[in-house]
Amino acid sequence: MQAQLDRIKWDDKGLVPVIAQESGTGKVLMFAWMNAQALQKTLELERAVYFSRSRNKLWFKGEESGHVQHVKSVRMDCDQDVLLLEVVQDGGMACHTGRHSCFFEAFDFDSRTWQVTEPVLKNPDLIYTK
Amino acid sequence: MQAQLDRIKWDDKGLVPVIAQESGTGKVLMFAWMNAQALQKTLELERAVYFSRSRNKLWFKGEESGHVQHVKSVRMDCDQDVLLLEVVQDGGMACHTGRHSCFFEAFDFDSRTWQVTEPVLKNPDLIYTK
Repeated sequence: MQAQLDRIKWDDKGLVPVIAQESGTGKVLMFAWMNAQALQKTLELERAVYFSRSRNKLWFKGEESGHVQHVKSVRMDCDQDVLLLEVVQDGGMACHTGRHSCFFEAFDFDSRTWQVTEPVLKNPDLIYTK
Repeated sequence: MQAQLDRIKWDDKGLVPVIAQESGTGKVLMFAWMNAQALQKTLELERAVYFSRSRNKLWFKGEESGHVQHVKSVRMDCDQDVLLLEVVQDGGMACHTGRHSCFFEAFDFDSRTWQVTEPVLKNPDLIYTK
């Protein structure tokens, strides 16, 4: 097991970028980071555990919001330095803004401005009640 | 236009992570980086232009391989520090190994090993002939 994780090329901070993609829809939900411990926990629990750079600690996705990501597959890229998770998203929301996906602004090629393209499904004040 | 790009929060190296997802299939093809100039070029040409960290210069995806990525949409995440491209992939291959996607190794939860899950579509020696 350890030997398998040793194939991953962690960056100078001991992290790798991680893309979370929704199982079934293929929607890219969010992007985060993992250190080795976060990946080990993710593989052990089969739920997404990231490393929060702002809080400098493991982030069990859904620990506050309940929006757990159940991990169906973990893929690694050709340089062994990026991971791609296939997840089932509890609550149908990955984003802290209460949206399905974090990628909710799209660049409009005509007006050359960013446009919000996804609705807020739930008021964040009702998600984070702690 | 410039004001719109100023919304992006570049990292301490002036870069943002970029995910390239295939239009239609939803397949995540690859992951790379952009600086402001790369993004400007991408929006101008409507083809993916990345910043190569190893070569320390703009990387016009497909410049050697011919595997250009035509950009259909550009999305930004809730923290304004990650971009998601929707692309049409010329040649049907994004990966320098000659595979459709760079994410061709999957972690097998039973054997606890990485397994190659995508075939090589074209010998890389025949892609990079320069």
